[in-house]
This record gives sequence, C-alpha cells and structure tokens, in this order.
Amino acid sequence: MSLIVQKFGGSSVANAERVFNVAKIVTDTYKKGNRVVVVVSAQGDTTDDLIEKANEINPNASKREKDMLLAAGEQISIALLAMAIEKLGYPVVSLLGWQAGFQTTSAYTSARIKRVRTDRIEKELDKKNIVIVAGFQGLNRYEDITTLGRGGSDTSAVAIAASMHADLCQIFTDVEGVYTADPRKVPTAKKLKTVSYDEMLELATLGAQVLNNRSVEMAKKYNIELEVLSSFTNTPGTIVKEAIKMEKMFISGVAKDTAVARISVVGVPDEPGLAFKMFSRLSAKNINVDIILQSIGRDGTKDISFTVAENNAKEAAKIMEEYIKAVGGKQVLLDEKVAKISVVGAGMESHAGVASKMFEALYDAHINIRMISTSEIKISVLIDEEDADAAVSAIHRKFFDMDN
Amino acid sequence: MSLIVQKFGGSSVANAERVFNVAKIVTDTYKKGNRVVVVVSAQGDTTDDLIEKANEINPNASKREKDMLLAAGEQISIALLAMAIEKLGYPVVSLLGWQAGFQTTSAYTSARIKRVRTDRIEKELDKKNIVIVAGFQGLNRYEDITTLGRGGSDTSAVAIAASMHADLCQIFTDVEGVYTADPRKVPTAKKLKTVSYDEMLELATLGAQVLNNRSVEMAKKYNIELEVLSSFTNTPGTIVKEAIKMEKMFISGVAKDTAVARISVVGVPDEPGLAFKMFSRLSAKNINVDIILQSIGRDGTKDISFTVAENNAKEAAKIMEEYIKAVGGKQVLLDEKVAKISVVGAGMESHAGVASKMFEALYDAHINIRMISTSEIKISVLIDEEDADAAVSAIHRKFFDMDN
Repeated sequence: MSLIVQKFGGSSVANAERVFNVAKIVTDTYKKGNRVVVVVSAQGDTTDDLIEKANEINPNASKREKDMLLAAGEQISIALLAMAIEKLGYPVVSLLGWQAGFQTTSAYTSARIKRVRTDRIEKELDKKNIVIVAGFQGLNRYEDITTLGRGGSDTSAVAIAASMHADLCQIFTDVEGVYTADPRKVPTAKKLKTVSYDEMLELATLGAQVLNNRSVEMAKKYNIELEVLSSFTNTPGTIVKEAIKMEKMFISGVAKDTAVARISVVGVPDEPGLAFKMFSRLSAKNINVDIILQSIGRDGTKDISFTVAENNAKEAAKIMEEYIKAVGGKQVLLDEKVAKISVVGAGMESHAGVASKMFEALYDAHINIRMISTSEIKISVLIDEEDADAAVSAIHRKFFDMDN
Repeated sequence: MSLIVQKFGGSSVANAERVFNVAKIVTDTYKKGNRVVVVVSAQGDTTDDLIEKANEINPNASKREKDMLLAAGEQISIALLAMAIEKLGYPVVSLLGWQAGFQTTSAYTSARIKRVRTDRIEKELDKKNIVIVAGFQGLNRYEDITTLGRGGSDTSAVAIAASMHADLCQIFTDVEGVYTADPRKVPTAKKLKTVSYDEMLELATLGAQVLNNRSVEMAKKYNIELEVLSSFTNTPGTIVKEAIKMEKMFISGVAKDTAVARISVVGVPDEPGLAFKMFSRLSAKNINVDIILQSIGRDGTKDISFTVAENNAKEAAKIMEEYIKAVGGKQVLLDEKVAKISVVGAGMESHAGVASKMFEALYDAHINIRMISTSEIKISVLIDEEDADAAVSAIHRKFFDMDN
C-alpha cells in the first residue's frame, strides 16, 4: 500500500465538470489500494474575484486581512472536491491548512512552512478516508491564517509528501509535463521524460512556471520523487528526481520570465560593504535579488543594477530611494519592460560552448543582451520584454532543432 | 467605556458601498470611546452562490462538507469589512469563528454554541483593535468547522455579548425595528419601541424573522439588552429587554411563517407511548416539532399531524415512513403549502377574547383554520399558504386599526 500525494491547481478544479474529473483521478488512485492525500488550490476564478473585491474596497489593505480573504478560496474548492468524491461513493474528508497541521512563519502573503504536524491527516487516512487538504495556506504562531504566496500549493503538496515519507508526489497541471520550451510558443518543444531537481529548480525559478521553485527545493532536500502531469490527458508526465542518470541532451530547456524588473542605483559612493548594506535592506523586506551587475567605479561612485520579481519592483525601488537618501547617490531607475531568458541543463558545466551558442542565437535574431548571469547549470540573459518570445524561439531552434 | 457588540446581516454588507456604510457605523461607535466587537454574516449573495455550486456537484453532500463550504462566506465578509475599516484609518482585526473561541456541539449545519472562549477577542480589544468576528460558525470537539443554521449570526452576537457582559448588543438589519406586522404587507403596521424577550421569542419563532429565536433565548437567559435597528437609516430601533413595564397594547404583533410543513401520520396502532416513540425519532435527528394534533382513536388506530420547519420536512417524512414500517400504520402525508399565522402578546393571558377575535378575523376573510396551538403569550393557526398574507392583514386590522 503506497502513500500518494496528488496536487491539483486552480484550473483543474475550475468548474463542476473539472472537479468531477479530479474526483475520478483521485478515486482511481484510491481504488488501487493506495492511501491518498490530495492538495487543492482555489478554483480558477475565485482568487481573482476575491482580489477584485478587496481592491474595490482597499487596494492597500493589510497583508493579514488579504490572507484571511484569499484563504477562503481553497476552503471552497476542498469542500466541493470532497462533495464530488462523496457523490462517487468514496469516504473523504476535507481539511483546511491549519487542520492539516501547516505551521508557517508569520510573513503574511509569503509565509514559509515551518513544519507540518500530520497527526490529523494520518488519523483520517487510518479511517480509510481520502484526505483533501487546502493548499497555499497555514497558520502562524499568532494563530492567524497565512498564505504561502504564488504557487504555494505545490509547496504544500511536497511538504506533506516529505513529512509523511510519501512514495510519490504527483503535481497535476494544465500541461503534460516539463518541456524544453513553452510548447504554446515553440511548436518543436519536446516533453522531458525526467529532469533533475537542479534543472527543474532553475526552470521553475526562471518562469517556466510548471512548478513552484520552493516546492522543488523541498523535494530535493527530502528526496521526494515528483511527477508533473496533466489532469486533462491520461499520459505519463515528467519525473523530477535526483540526477542519477542524465538524459543525453545536455541542456534541458529554455525558459522565459517576464515577471521581472531591473533596478539601477546610479552614482552611489564607492565604500566597503556597499553591496551588503544595499541588499540587506532588501532582504529585510523579504525581497530576493537575482542578477546583479556592478559598474567599475568612477569619480568615487558606482552604479549597481539588479533584477527583482516584478511584484516586488516598486517596493524595492522605494527602498533604494531611501537608501540613496541615507548614503548619497544620484538616482534610482526602474525598468519593468524586461525579460529573463535562460538555458538550463545539468550537462552544461562541461560544455563551454553553451554560452556562445546562446549568444550567437540572440545575435542572429538581433536581440540586445542587457545583463548576463551564469551558474553551474544555467545561463540567463536579461533582454527587452518585447523580444522575449523571439529570443526563446531562436535559442530553442539553435539547441534543439535537428538541422542545427 | 462601554463594550458594544454590533451584528450586521448579509444584506448590510452585500457590496462595497454597503461594507463602507457598516464600517462608518462601527468606527463612529469606536470613536466615541467604546470597545467594539462586530459580528458579520456572509455577503448577501455569497451563501446562495456557494449553495448553488454545491448543488451542482452533489445535492446530497455530507453536512460536514456543507459547513466547510458555507463557512468560507463569513471569512470573505469579515476580511472585506476589516479592509474597509483599515481604509478609514482605524485599527482592526478580523477573526474566524474558531479564532474568536466559538466552541459548538457537533451537529453540522445546526450546531449550538457550547461556550465562547473570549481570550483572543479580549487581547485584541486591549490592543485597541476593533474586532470583527465571523458569525454563524464555530468549531466542534473534532476541530471541525460547524455552522449554527439559519440566523445563526444573531446568536453569535448575543453569545459574545453574554460571555463578555457587553453593555449593549445591537442587531442591524434591513428593517427599522420590530413591527406589529410585516410593514411591507401591512401598511398600518407600527414599530414597537420596546418588546419583551418572551414576545420577541414568539415573534422570532413564528417567522417574523427579525431576530433568530435562539439569540433571543440566550439574550433572555443572560439578560442582554438587544436593539434591533436598520443599518440603512439612522433612527432608533426596537429595544428587546425584560418585560418590566409593558406597553399598553396587549398584543405586540402578528407574525407569518410560510417555511413550515405539515406531516400527517395516518392509522398508527394506538399504544401507550405512541407520541413519545414517534417524536423521539425526530428529536434524535435534531428535528423540532411545533403544532401537534392527535386524532381521537378509531379502530385501535390514531392519526397524528404535526408541523416542522419546511427544510426538515422531507427528512421528517422519511423518518415517519420508516416509523410506520416498523410499528405498522397506513400512510404518511406531507403538505408543504401551509403557513402558520400567530398573534403574540405578553398581555394576552388575561384576555380570553384574543383567540375568538383572531378566529373571527379569519372567518370574516373566509380562511380555513387547519390546526390551532396556544401558549401563554401566543395563539397560532395553521392555514393554507395562499391565504397567509390575507390572514395577516385581516388579523392586524382587527387588533390594531383605530376603527375596531
């Protein structure tokens, strides 16, 4: 008897028909003798509707009340899914994040899971129930509802799988697996049979948006095998696991992230600890910085450019304005019309030619590179947002098309 | 510094404009130096939308999952109201039923409050917060969400007022107070300045629907002064309190309840304990029986008719079918097209003429009486539903119009 965790995103439960489709997948798994824990996101439109209601009343509402509001979304979807499973004649119980034991940090709207106390889930599984858990949400030490931020339901699912030593964690989405590029944009994109945690991590971070990066980090840490597959078609997906036997292809995909912004802090005094002082202000506000470019000093000042997630951009720019007010500096520039394009592959480190091949593809397509960042398994470039799709196609063609 | 509990129903928070209207009332009360606890129902349409979603998937879903679903409604409304109050610049915090300490019985969809542990509310009030509490919901001993059934938010408000020894509990609705009859149907209906708990209790039970009966029972038990008033007009409402000084009028109102059904159990063997055995089956399922009529025995059998709330009717009829299968009996008849009309008044017991005056009014209006029930402060009759409005008008005219 295996323990299987299945996660379904908002589009998989968007309406009654789809809820029954999910109920069918879940009960088929249960029928085979498995213990099944299901993690569900809010229904497709619910979250948008709730955000709209909130914005109509107070766009600057506190994050605590935003979390209180948004957490209602999964409460609705878990109850509806449980009702559908009852209709199919199977024993089932739905649990909110706090009932399922999700204890998080206090950071409203972007809390992190501290631990999952799975007693209640185990008790319900022992009663032969299918257990439906609200993803995306938990409880902080003040006994207040928190949410995990975008894609948090993936993390919820992996956290349960890790805490309960699940045999498999299946992430159902609206795509059939992990592709070498976005198949809606690049018709020749190929589905990967397997991908390593590290590659998936880069793909997730880089906006391939199939899996939330925190969920992959957690899966890697606890060695949980993930399967990314479609809830709409009955075909095998992509397995994400430890890189024991790599696929031959030395890069695994091309990813695009347009939800990124560039901030340039111009003319700050060139003192020791400059970068530390600057970026500690951002990390204090939980803002992650990605690519960083520091100019060579001139007249005793430096320019520092960096990228942040677009939804943090305005706050980050404001923090930098305060920073230059405090230490001196010329100006802060914010550019939200940028995109980050990355090639990812665990085989990359032994192939010096990857970078030049990527840059050649961009050069051929007349696309300017604004910033560059490299790691052992990826190369990222920052370009103008309007060039993003063309860049992905050009790079994918260069690496994957037969005639190259 | 007074402690004031204010309760707002679903229509009072139906849209953004109304939410701000409520926020204004609440903050005006807070500004005067009061400690304010606000109990809110789900927004007007939310509950209906959720029920529709549930019915589309499984009309026979378990009550546990129904409660899980419906409780999302107040979660949305408390967050939105808190956001509106934040926008007005006041400190506020919203609490779900379980966070506010509502411990209930386990009976899903119709749970009763066992106690309110108000530590969290008090802590938030000490921090000078306006406290918004989700009405209608609580937590049972399995740590599962329960709801209190129709009108449960009134009970939530009174329970907080009782537990915290509040100075006043204001119930805001879409009417301006308690009237001698439904003012939309009977133009000559008068608003009462005060009404006793017992009278209000009868009016509530009888479908005047201004206040939930359990809330009035609780207010009576703990001697909490209630004020029923409109959230839309700024006029004093009706005070509900102990009957120290009665109004001169010896009946206080005429009430109509169409959400009632009559069940007749025909030809059951006339044995000792018949009624007990029959009705214990209903009470085991938490179904309340109201008017009971037992025929004189004939051929060793009896017919028993009784009324129940319409939403319990089908379940009650089914239980009676099982009953006659077990003990013998001819048939079970269910009639949902009935209405209960009642006159209520604490002065009634000393006026033998009330019943005959009521029956005369119905006779004059050619309305058949099917069942009769009397208590110290009310007389109820069961009639055909189609005659209900005419009956209320006829009776109100007889008792309240100047020329009678």
